[in-house]
Amino acid sequence: MNNFVLHNPTKIIFGKDTIKEIGPEMAKFGVKKALLVYGRASIKKNGVFEQVSASLQMAGINAVEFGGIQSNPVLSKVRAGIDLARQEGCDAVLAVGGGSVYDSSKAIAAGVQYEGDVWDFFGRRKIPAAALPIFGVLTISATGSEMNALGVVTNEDAKRKWPFTSPVLYPKVSVIDPSIQATLPAHQTANAAVDIIAHVMELYFDGTENNDVMDEYSEGIIRTVIKHAPILLADPANYESRAQLAWCATLALNGSNAPGRRGGDFASHGIEHALSAWNDIAHGAGLAIVFPAWMKYVYKDNPQAFLRFGEKVFGIIEGGEEERILAAIDALQKFFSRLGAPKSMREAGYSKADLPAIAEIAAGLGLLGNKKKLSQADILAILELAW
Amino acid sequence: MNNFVLHNPTKIIFGKDTIKEIGPEMAKFGVKKALLVYGRASIKKNGVFEQVSASLQMAGINAVEFGGIQSNPVLSKVRAGIDLARQEGCDAVLAVGGGSVYDSSKAIAAGVQYEGDVWDFFGRRKIPAAALPIFGVLTISATGSEMNALGVVTNEDAKRKWPFTSPVLYPKVSVIDPSIQATLPAHQTANAAVDIIAHVMELYFDGTENNDVMDEYSEGIIRTVIKHAPILLADPANYESRAQLAWCATLALNGSNAPGRRGGDFASHGIEHALSAWNDIAHGAGLAIVFPAWMKYVYKDNPQAFLRFGEKVFGIIEGGEEERILAAIDALQKFFSRLGAPKSMREAGYSKADLPAIAEIAAGLGLLGNKKKLSQADILAILELAW
Repeated sequence: MNNFVLHNPTKIIFGKDTIKEIGPEMAKFGVKKALLVYGRASIKKNGVFEQVSASLQMAGINAVEFGGIQSNPVLSKVRAGIDLARQEGCDAVLAVGGGSVYDSSKAIAAGVQYEGDVWDFFGRRKIPAAALPIFGVLTISATGSEMNALGVVTNEDAKRKWPFTSPVLYPKVSVIDPSIQATLPAHQTANAAVDIIAHVMELYFDGTENNDVMDEYSEGIIRTVIKHAPILLADPANYESRAQLAWCATLALNGSNAPGRRGGDFASHGIEHALSAWNDIAHGAGLAIVFPAWMKYVYKDNPQAFLRFGEKVFGIIEGGEEERILAAIDALQKFFSRLGAPKSMREAGYSKADLPAIAEIAAGLGLLGNKKKLSQADILAILELAW
Repeated sequence: MNNFVLHNPTKIIFGKDTIKEIGPEMAKFGVKKALLVYGRASIKKNGVFEQVSASLQMAGINAVEFGGIQSNPVLSKVRAGIDLARQEGCDAVLAVGGGSVYDSSKAIAAGVQYEGDVWDFFGRRKIPAAALPIFGVLTISATGSEMNALGVVTNEDAKRKWPFTSPVLYPKVSVIDPSIQATLPAHQTANAAVDIIAHVMELYFDGTENNDVMDEYSEGIIRTVIKHAPILLADPANYESRAQLAWCATLALNGSNAPGRRGGDFASHGIEHALSAWNDIAHGAGLAIVFPAWMKYVYKDNPQAFLRFGEKVFGIIEGGEEERILAAIDALQKFFSRLGAPKSMREAGYSKADLPAIAEIAAGLGLLGNKKKLSQADILAILELAW
């Protein structure tokens, strides 16, 4: 077990009929005027916007609306949000949406307090030292952004989808009401399930040894997603399964399964970010393609972890080592397919001729990976396996 | 899954050679003079006191020593600590020790800021509204006090061992260096293992349904303790097993396995507190006696949870329902015995004539339990099973 620091100050309010809490919680921080960041008009149709507005009004907080955040959120929109928050003198940012809205809100919150260009923070070239306080009402559980200090935004001119982080970016309070996710389209639930499993696996496969309790925890999250995601595809309004999937999403990337590890691998995420910077594929769909290819490429460097994964997640205990590992990767890919995720880059509409350029983008942040460090040639080989 | 709020602001610094961090961390909060609370002279022999003192000195923080906290810490000592902290003008409390030292430190920190008698806070009759900032260096992993807002102290005159809690009692920073636990006597490691499992089971058996991910997590912690505690009894300096047990102890009662549950059962803890108020038995030893007796008394009210426990923790899948449940309770008791814990109150030196009086003490905080509420007569019946 490696040394670690754990400090996650985000307050989570979780459950049915909890959106009304957001205004009073923000008032405790003295918020007077919040930039209300959201995506599409859906929150105005499903009652979420109304509930948030009523709660803010009750708490005496003004809201400046800033809608139109898209999935794979873009830098130009973040810059526009920073301008609006400054112009209006906002003293907080309120994210009402999923991971893209949260990530954009974090970038805006940091950008408002920074004199330079917000893109400086991406790729971890600079770390935000200050940010407006961030609050949120989560409408799609998937990325974990509601309880972590991370974000990812695409610079659409440079075709770079890069991460940023800083301890100042933990949301103060996030409200998660799983019942409002009952109307999500099936493909969003499926992408969320893939994303959750991928987050857990990035930590699980980082080459850490001797960390039973965190391995047990990780396997438990994955088994829970494998159980409940298919239930939701058949019965989207099943509250118990929504709540399980929602809580798994938060746990998967809130740092609770990171203690004692080596910081996670995140090569699959790095490669997927190149895929979606190139072609705007949904993050979960991209991960469903990339992760199994990455596993096939690297398992020989870390066979014990893959054997354990096969046994604990899919009950695979018979056959030779290589056979069991390949069976586990196959079982994972079959589960992703069962959710409706694409199996290959070809199926997802990429052109084979683009692979070298995508590999170059993925390699743009330096060596990806942890236990196995990936060169640009390694990445290209993984993309060819994903093809 | 029930609605919940999760907010744990404690920062954990975990691993080898981390004690030196405590001074700089306290300096970030502007601490100038801390009440340094500890137990016996052991921290002066094993180098911990020296490391803490050096770190405080480097950070320019003065320490007022307050030693002599005993296991099952007592109210008179807490009152003395409050007096000393006031007299010396301390602006923080630093716990250097195990759960008893932490719990006493929390009571002192709250008591200093309160005009009335600190005993008012016990049994949850009043909730502390303010406290001096609490920091800690953990030397025995067991109670989880390093990352929660709870404490338990014995009023020795009234023979009452009662809990207290408040959000202001979360430690700001706790340092956990498992390597300093390498020299713990075997019975302390064994008691810690029992305490950890008991904390997890208090939450696990509270009657919550439909909470797979938290059940998976709970089972993973228990399996990890069952694996690593025996390794430590044979090889006390095994760092990897120390680290696993230490982290399990923190996770077991830091709120991370509480989401979506019904608040835990804690009847076994309530009954054990009566045992140790009566006779100063070690908390873990008391729990090893009480918990299996409680399980035998209540399983019929919640059989699915006990069946699941038997299967997931001990692999018990054959036989009728009752048979499997009793086999699971038996397996747990055998594990506790293997650690050297007493099997019965008789073995632990209680007199049978005392059972009614102990039941009366346990019933003094009102109805114990959650899924099954226990009257004084129920408690007496459990004590007779524990006899």
